[in-house]
Amino acid sequence: MRGTGKADVFVMLAHPVGHAKSPGIFNEIFEAKGLDSLMVPLTCRPEDFETFWAGLTAAENIRGVIISVPYKTAVYGKCAGGHDRAVRVESANSVRRLPDGTWYADNFDGVGFIDSLRAHSYDFTGKRVLQVGAGGAGSSIAYCLAEAGAAEIRLNDVDRERAAYLAALVAKAFPSCAIVAGEPDPSGMDLVVNATPIGMHTGDALPLDTSKLASGMTVVDIIMEPAETELLRIAKEKGCRVHYGRPMMDFQVKGMSEFFDIERTEPRHG
Amino acid sequence: MRGTGKADVFVMLAHPVGHAKSPGIFNEIFEAKGLDSLMVPLTCRPEDFETFWAGLTAAENIRGVIISVPYKTAVYGKCAGGHDRAVRVESANSVRRLPDGTWYADNFDGVGFIDSLRAHSYDFTGKRVLQVGAGGAGSSIAYCLAEAGAAEIRLNDVDRERAAYLAALVAKAFPSCAIVAGEPDPSGMDLVVNATPIGMHTGDALPLDTSKLASGMTVVDIIMEPAETELLRIAKEKGCRVHYGRPMMDFQVKGMSEFFDIERTEPRHG
Repeated sequence: MRGTGKADVFVMLAHPVGHAKSPGIFNEIFEAKGLDSLMVPLTCRPEDFETFWAGLTAAENIRGVIISVPYKTAVYGKCAGGHDRAVRVESANSVRRLPDGTWYADNFDGVGFIDSLRAHSYDFTGKRVLQVGAGGAGSSIAYCLAEAGAAEIRLNDVDRERAAYLAALVAKAFPSCAIVAGEPDPSGMDLVVNATPIGMHTGDALPLDTSKLASGMTVVDIIMEPAETELLRIAKEKGCRVHYGRPMMDFQVKGMSEFFDIERTEPRHG
Repeated sequence: MRGTGKADVFVMLAHPVGHAKSPGIFNEIFEAKGLDSLMVPLTCRPEDFETFWAGLTAAENIRGVIISVPYKTAVYGKCAGGHDRAVRVESANSVRRLPDGTWYADNFDGVGFIDSLRAHSYDFTGKRVLQVGAGGAGSSIAYCLAEAGAAEIRLNDVDRERAAYLAALVAKAFPSCAIVAGEPDPSGMDLVVNATPIGMHTGDALPLDTSKLASGMTVVDIIMEPAETELLRIAKEKGCRVHYGRPMMDFQVKGMSEFFDIERTEPRHG
């Protein structure tokens, strides 16, 4: 049976929102746990965001929101506080209601990445990493890599300034990690990460110089569809270990479920 | 499987909203029809209504709203137009989005009442009616009774002025119906209607003078819980035909489903 949302209501916000997977995933979790909660996808035009967010905040029974492109930074700006993971990238992909009605931010983009590799016993300590992509997800991942103990990160982005800026910020937060902007060349790296959308569409270029991939490297793509990108296909051929995007989503969902405390079952609103 | 709301999102608005039945009913309809739509219950404090409604209107993928106490009049005031059933009572219990993004109002409170009796071949033409209750639902029902051909309506309410005011409005709209405010005395009536909440709680007084009920009368209670109120129990004992509240809800849902055009399946938002 479908839920009624009597217990709690959660929102997935993006623009557009039609392809968002979170409502389906969370509504199945609610069903499996026997919770009468609902996650509903909502969207608004960027020029209406201020009005939309004020109204969403006025809705007493909305307990949490998952945020995707293009609202992660805007929603972070509406929060009264947040976890360091959100604060350092000034970006919220999850917010929950505090008892005083204000919002608290967190960001699980990097957490899902780290946790899914750790679930395969991957140890980041001392690793040398090539990361391509310094955008929203890339920023979260770079910080988390440094935090997890990576010794060296070469950061590449089509926007060179963006890569250099992020590298400087991460270096300041984690001085033990040697992070610099550089070429998309995996030579000599232990871990190779694609944090760009390049590879989602047939005919996309490759996000990095795959001729330099070598067996023994671990190659990760954050793209979920297709499950196996051209990058991962080539990496497998070359004897690299590969990690897919979908498990990262699963670990993000795990983190968000704890963040939202969705085990709590009592209806709060009479 | 629970829905994801990819197709369309509907809202049930009330304060409080915890006991609203519509989300459960509509989400089962969506499931039965294989539609990936969702109805979500939302609530806000009256002092936040303006902000809440502006935000809800900014949410592009909210296609319709069902409204209950205390927001029917306030939401009607936000509509660009409406069906005569809503306009005459200045009250919306359902609104849908027009192509230009504005809201169109309708009100199925009376429709459900009329349709559920007609489903049992009840003919209102020329009938004499005692109606108790001239509030939100009562107003809708009184207009619909007059419209359906009732010859005479005696309208009673604990607030005498409210009953007299509504009687005057209905009389003006339907001059063929002799509607006046009066005592809650069913003597000589064909149809007896309780449109008050009196009878929902154990120990409630009776909403009208049941000593004057007689076999041959038809007695209707709009209360859904309990299914059989004390009024209906006594009416049955006295040989009256009785009609319950729940079928009215079912016929309201039918009207709302057509109003929302929920058969349309294509997702509209990318």
